Amino acid sequence: MIERKREEYYINVNPLQTGGRTNSEVRKVALQYVDGYSVCDYCKGMLHLIEKPPICDLTRELSRFLDMDESRITLGAREGKFAVIHTLLQPGDTIVCDSNRHYTTYVAAERVGAKIYEVESTGYPSYEIRPEGYREMIEKIRSETNKPPKLAILTHVDGEYGNLTPAKEIGEICKEYDVPFLLNAAYTAGRMEVKGKELGADFLVCSCHKGFGVPGAIGILATTNRWVNELFRKSQVYKKKDVELLGCTARSLAVATLIAALPYVKERVKKWDEEVEKARWFVDRMEGLGNITQLGVRPTQHDLLRFETPLLREIGKHHRKKGYFLYYELEKRGIIGLKPGQTDWFKLSTYGLTWDQVKYLYEAFEEIVKKFSG
Amino acid sequence: MIERKREEYYINVNPLQTGGRTNSEVRKVALQYVDGYSVCDYCKGMLHLIEKPPICDLTRELSRFLDMDESRITLGAREGKFAVIHTLLQPGDTIVCDSNRHYTTYVAAERVGAKIYEVESTGYPSYEIRPEGYREMIEKIRSETNKPPKLAILTHVDGEYGNLTPAKEIGEICKEYDVPFLLNAAYTAGRMEVKGKELGADFLVCSCHKGFGVPGAIGILATTNRWVNELFRKSQVYKKKDVELLGCTARSLAVATLIAALPYVKERVKKWDEEVEKARWFVDRMEGLGNITQLGVRPTQHDLLRFETPLLREIGKHHRKKGYFLYYELEKRGIIGLKPGQTDWFKLSTYGLTWDQVKYLYEAFEEIVKKFSG
Repeated sequence: MIERKREEYYINVNPLQTGGRTNSEVRKVALQYVDGYSVCDYCKGMLHLIEKPPICDLTRELSRFLDMDESRITLGAREGKFAVIHTLLQPGDTIVCDSNRHYTTYVAAERVGAKIYEVESTGYPSYEIRPEGYREMIEKIRSETNKPPKLAILTHVDGEYGNLTPAKEIGEICKEYDVPFLLNAAYTAGRMEVKGKELGADFLVCSCHKGFGVPGAIGILATTNRWVNELFRKSQVYKKKDVELLGCTARSLAVATLIAALPYVKERVKKWDEEVEKARWFVDRMEGLGNITQLGVRPTQHDLLRFETPLLREIGKHHRKKGYFLYYELEKRGIIGLKPGQTDWFKLSTYGLTWDQVKYLYEAFEEIVKKFSG
Repeated sequence: MIERKREEYYINVNPLQTGGRTNSEVRKVALQYVDGYSVCDYCKGMLHLIEKPPICDLTRELSRFLDMDESRITLGAREGKFAVIHTLLQPGDTIVCDSNRHYTTYVAAERVGAKIYEVESTGYPSYEIRPEGYREMIEKIRSETNKPPKLAILTHVDGEYGNLTPAKEIGEICKEYDVPFLLNAAYTAGRMEVKGKELGADFLVCSCHKGFGVPGAIGILATTNRWVNELFRKSQVYKKKDVELLGCTARSLAVATLIAALPYVKERVKKWDEEVEKARWFVDRMEGLGNITQLGVRPTQHDLLRFETPLLREIGKHHRKKGYFLYYELEKRGIIGLKPGQTDWFKLSTYGLTWDQVKYLYEAFEEIVKKFSG
């Protein structure tokens, strides 16, 4: 077994992890509910209706928080995407989505046998998804297949560049063509305010281990009244059981901790502007070091930052640890979360760091650059 | 939030929960890995190949432990069943399974659009599944549909009566008819030794939050070399990603705790005979109280016990708390896990209790019966 010392000993900037860090209240509840099936003490047959712990309130609150009509707890965003695709599509049917999508969007479609058409980003260096690209692609699918796609999926903020794509404009285009619209809010919900119906979303998926500060695996699948009966259809035999959820999903501490985390999450989304401010400050300073550039839309609107770093690649060329120098130099300074060996480019996230930590993070890079360049 | 005080303050006999209780080592690791995506620190693209923590060793060890060729971590037994059914069957295809099956076997088949044919149990009072019933049902399906079923599923021990059905005999029948055989070991693996290939299983699913003493949601899906490529087929685009698993599954403390739990689980299965002995002792004493009968196969071969309890129903008729008296009387004595109001019959599990606790449990019933009857 490898002991894990992360939050207490290191500043972890892995974008996968910064939004999933737990606070002490969540950790307390995690221990109370650590046993298998712990939330089932008072179950009457439906996970989302359990009153002790108050999962019934949780799902209602999540619907309100996300501005959707009905929510269910899932085992992650990908499982929610699959549930929607599996409900709406037959093998051979088509989906339109953005080219910055997560790999699981593709794999979920593949599992159903659906075909994906991608709206290409503008490419290097901003990799922007233009909303009008959805219109063009829907038209293209219509002309190629004689029908519109069965589903549109947008990665609200993608995991490669941290680009925030205008969901509302895409929601409007989808409405115009009567294409159901699934918003993947894995990198937005829990960090910033996401109002699903306002954005025109028919379906919204969230990742709580990515964005709500809880242990996984847990996500949210939310929808509107129009789709409730179809998406959350019940078993023919087990009238209380959702077919797409196989009955119950997160059957353990994950859902109990989400109850504990939600009040904190509701507060933290209000401070999103400051998170963006920290990220922008960091970008600004990093670019000041020399040949380092933030990719993606500028100025960034998210904490997930992708840098192109020829400056560091050059250092690596002459360093006896080659490209690994950066990882070790950062680790020495108590900073982790970058991929070892990666110096051409890297991703990091400043989410949840204090201003002091963000400054320390920058100063670490500054120190390393000064130490090894020229 | 409802504070949960269970293991320290109560004897919990809920059959769903007794095999999922965590030990202190597991709790320690749970806290280390409590943050979202905590096991992804050193990921190279495949959950089951992560070296830190050693998930790669875990899946290899699980395969050996379960006598199967290859294993993957899933989000639960039901998710494993769905993955197998979704891989092997098309809508309209047929499955043969036992009538004591878990509801999720039905719902997983329903989600695929498969049709289930059930081998009926012998009914009251033993509810036994005769292996020959599988032969008869396969023959029936053949004559009705002109082909054998695409899959046979057996609930190794069911959750209603705790009946252990001879899997090996059914495995042999399946082999004879060339029907792939899925063994649902949710109530056996982790408690008793389960040797999948020896039993003729092509697929084996386990529930670790039910049987391996860890928080969920986490399960195991294991198979033989014959099926590896089909069941664990990779994405066309993402060559490292399992389509049926949507890439990665239990992405958090659940998998880290399973690493910590496995050495204990390997030891505890060796003590299974004593667990059965405790259960039988308890049955014997309970039946000695009067009109109380253990249902299911006798003598029981499992810790999950179902009792028919006219004696307690009679007491409830005259008690001012009606059928709820039993729940409250047990709770007063620090015993929980029975459904409130249920006195016609109930299920409980003696798994993992010490002899002293089993005796205390019996004495509580004895005391309650003496206090209120006659």
